[in-house]
Amino acid sequence: MTDLGDEAALPALVGPVEVVGAGLIGTSIALVCARLGIEVVLRDTAEENVRTAHGLGAGRPVRPEDRPQLVVVAVPPAAIADAIVDALQRTDAVVTDVGSVKAAPLTAVAARVAGADLARYVGSHPMAGSERSGPLAASAALFDGRPWAVTPHLDARPDAVGLVETLVLECGAAPIRMEPAEHDRAVARISHLPHLAAVLVAGRLAAAPAEHLALSGQGVRDVTRVAASDPGLWQQILEANSEAVLDLLAEVRADLDDLMSAVSAAPTAPSGPSAPGLVEILTRGNAGTAAIPGKHGGPARPTRSVFVAVPDHPGELARLFGDAGEIGVNIEDVHIDHDPGRPVGLTELVVDRGSAEQLLAALESRGWTTHR
Amino acid sequence: MTDLGDEAALPALVGPVEVVGAGLIGTSIALVCARLGIEVVLRDTAEENVRTAHGLGAGRPVRPEDRPQLVVVAVPPAAIADAIVDALQRTDAVVTDVGSVKAAPLTAVAARVAGADLARYVGSHPMAGSERSGPLAASAALFDGRPWAVTPHLDARPDAVGLVETLVLECGAAPIRMEPAEHDRAVARISHLPHLAAVLVAGRLAAAPAEHLALSGQGVRDVTRVAASDPGLWQQILEANSEAVLDLLAEVRADLDDLMSAVSAAPTAPSGPSAPGLVEILTRGNAGTAAIPGKHGGPARPTRSVFVAVPDHPGELARLFGDAGEIGVNIEDVHIDHDPGRPVGLTELVVDRGSAEQLLAALESRGWTTHR
Repeated sequence: MTDLGDEAALPALVGPVEVVGAGLIGTSIALVCARLGIEVVLRDTAEENVRTAHGLGAGRPVRPEDRPQLVVVAVPPAAIADAIVDALQRTDAVVTDVGSVKAAPLTAVAARVAGADLARYVGSHPMAGSERSGPLAASAALFDGRPWAVTPHLDARPDAVGLVETLVLECGAAPIRMEPAEHDRAVARISHLPHLAAVLVAGRLAAAPAEHLALSGQGVRDVTRVAASDPGLWQQILEANSEAVLDLLAEVRADLDDLMSAVSAAPTAPSGPSAPGLVEILTRGNAGTAAIPGKHGGPARPTRSVFVAVPDHPGELARLFGDAGEIGVNIEDVHIDHDPGRPVGLTELVVDRGSAEQLLAALESRGWTTHR
Repeated sequence: MTDLGDEAALPALVGPVEVVGAGLIGTSIALVCARLGIEVVLRDTAEENVRTAHGLGAGRPVRPEDRPQLVVVAVPPAAIADAIVDALQRTDAVVTDVGSVKAAPLTAVAARVAGADLARYVGSHPMAGSERSGPLAASAALFDGRPWAVTPHLDARPDAVGLVETLVLECGAAPIRMEPAEHDRAVARISHLPHLAAVLVAGRLAAAPAEHLALSGQGVRDVTRVAASDPGLWQQILEANSEAVLDLLAEVRADLDDLMSAVSAAPTAPSGPSAPGLVEILTRGNAGTAAIPGKHGGPARPTRSVFVAVPDHPGELARLFGDAGEIGVNIEDVHIDHDPGRPVGLTELVVDRGSAEQLLAALESRGWTTHR
């Protein structure tokens, strides 16, 4: 990870910007550029997407005489390499893509494009998305505050890398420079593995008796939420990153074997001298959650949860947040528990540890039912 | 699962109620009973817990001459069976416990107590808790709207079962009657397996390079959140339910093997005639998330997410919820994205699908930056 030493030295993004693939990500980037006053031209195999994005003010259909400064390839994973090659052969522009996997497309492109043309290609990957897709879901705010990996190959032109980092910054995101293969190992670990774990747990719910599911709490909902995503898109992502994903799945398989040994062992008879015990495995999980960086990229700040019972009708959450705002405590995170059986929600407010007692006392004095 | 046909026929809870173990759950139950005007007596091997709970108005220390109507055993999993036997031998009361696992303690109790005494025991399990513990974390609101399993054995006295269900209802929870072994299979699936999946994913983060973790988004945070829980408590829970947990882990191990085959197979060459493909596995995950019951126990209602950019300082969330409240749209759920790198949060409001367009238009007219 390389921080930008001197943003002033980055090349200016003056346009035109050509966006290939006017879906959620492509149209969102187009909207950002259009709002900066940059000319945006749109290309998509589905003409309807171009019409929709154009209607949203995200640019106009591409014309043969267009000479873009930057081409952004934002097509599905399986089509990315072809689209990058096409852009490098058609134009003299800097070319980036926004695919979830970086090494495999680079290899495919480098087999067909070389030298000065390949030097104009710099891959990237915004860590933003939605369970929705298509241009109608697009927003210029999609990238606000998100990490955005920039993954140049060794022969990439420095000014091309700089131009892609300019785009990232204009989109409001934080550029994080990584090698393509390192990026793929990173997303295998922090995105693809969690996704597959959620899929496996959710898969075990699919055939469960309804009476089992009636006991569901917030834990299982959190663990499985991402498993609701589009299978076709994820198939392409996983196939493009199969090597890094398989390495991690093999590690998890070994961990699972250790876990099964630890669960089946009597408490006083560990399964072997080197096998980790259950407490050791569970403690490693504690360490992993603590390792995820906190809000705003800093180390995780110590927080505390305050629980408030909130009647489930319009205006009650507003009243709660209105009171919290007047109290002057910053809410770091919120969870609303989906409570089966009755119309009262339990709302969890996550706040700085030092502010929790103040918030509790002040909410209670305003008549809220709280617990810690 | 049995719904209560006729709540009017349930026995009245008149007390005294003896609570054994004045921790989070025990003290919370004691608070509910005390607020109903029922006499509550407290027993704990740690005298400090009794003093603290007493100070909270949750009852008084037990005396030898006390004759409880109901004993609630709320001690750590490894101590539950002994505490139930002790309560059945000491008193003539109906005895329940609130442990996370039901079959193993019942077997241990039935080996030492028989006939009319065993008939007074009815296990139960409130699906409530917190990452915090101890009497200071207690709250009479802890069980509001939560499922609470009631798990009578075959020879339990009907009036004893009724009295425990009365307690559940007085606590504001929803009683769900299940056989003990069935309960254990249910929580293995909807609680213990998700917990262990989170632990395995988090375990793979513990040793990851910081630059990998810098790309973390909301998905990995949601999947791993529960892995932050107390290892000692979870060791006891998993050991008490090892049979059902191991059955499920074996199923997941087979699913993981299928998944690895599917990821390593070329898209056009599935690994065998009967092996599921990647899309099939991912689609089963979709079905599992859809099978979790919706808010208030009904089928999941179709919802849509509305994203709003919110500056990260006190009062902004209040203003957002104030505006949402005036617009009159009920917020089903809220997520605040922890955005590394800049002080703007992305807040996801989950609303009924039919209300989303209205909310978006009204928020935009009030100057909020939204996307879908």
